Amino acid sequence: MTVQRLSMVTLGVADLARSRDFYESWGWEKRQDAQNIVFFQLNGLVLGLFSLTMLAADQARPDAVLGTGAVTLAQNYATEAEVDERFDAALSAGAVELKRPGAAPWGGSSGYVADPDGHVWELAVNPFWDLASDGSVSIPDHLPES
Amino acid sequence: MTVQRLSMVTLGVADLARSRDFYESWGWEKRQDAQNIVFFQLNGLVLGLFSLTMLAADQARPDAVLGTGAVTLAQNYATEAEVDERFDAALSAGAVELKRPGAAPWGGSSGYVADPDGHVWELAVNPFWDLASDGSVSIPDHLPES
Repeated sequence: MTVQRLSMVTLGVADLARSRDFYESWGWEKRQDAQNIVFFQLNGLVLGLFSLTMLAADQARPDAVLGTGAVTLAQNYATEAEVDERFDAALSAGAVELKRPGAAPWGGSSGYVADPDGHVWELAVNPFWDLASDGSVSIPDHLPES
Repeated sequence: MTVQRLSMVTLGVADLARSRDFYESWGWEKRQDAQNIVFFQLNGLVLGLFSLTMLAADQARPDAVLGTGAVTLAQNYATEAEVDERFDAALSAGAVELKRPGAAPWGGSSGYVADPDGHVWELAVNPFWDLASDGSVSIPDHLPES
């Protein structure tokens, strides 16, 4: 049993219809639309949009789920042109621009947008990692430790 | 180009060594340990632990990344016994218990723990989704809309 894994990310949202519309306007296709949650099938994991109050109740921390927290969710692409296209599409869909795509100090390039609830997405090109067409990434073996 | 994807999740942490030790104590094996970030290779995506202040600077929202936010990160397993084992291992590694594993209203079962910075992990069994051994999940086709 491999224990390190990420099977699903759930984003708590204030208005489920607004959030669903945002991701669909950004070009995503939902897999299932239930009463209080919307599922998107991603590259081997699932992203869910879920009522903020129900997320809070489910996590048993009703007062602790406001805000967007110290999390970045990244989408990697092969080229800066793809990142630019996805960035512009996000703004057109109603995202808030945090940082326009450009060279990053780690040697790749990236930009940041926030979704309607402030969840932060990074759109990146990382020339050091292997990227599959579905967005799956693999860190090459034999990297030096610093 | 499939646009819906999650390539990396980065968690902002107050003390990188403390967080790395927590995940390693939980049984994870790091892929790369750099000066300000630690990478774990997951099922087709990467999880990074990153200095909170550097994350804030990178996202260009220096005052907005405190707290844990409205996000759940889920690890799915095939059996409740595996969830219980992983849950107890998390507590032994220093996690905070939020909710002990048990039956969930959606028909599966799950529990919640928080890592040293409060990032919330759900440990779940979802009998309705296909689960690969590496934690990758797939939502079956042909689900009804509610």
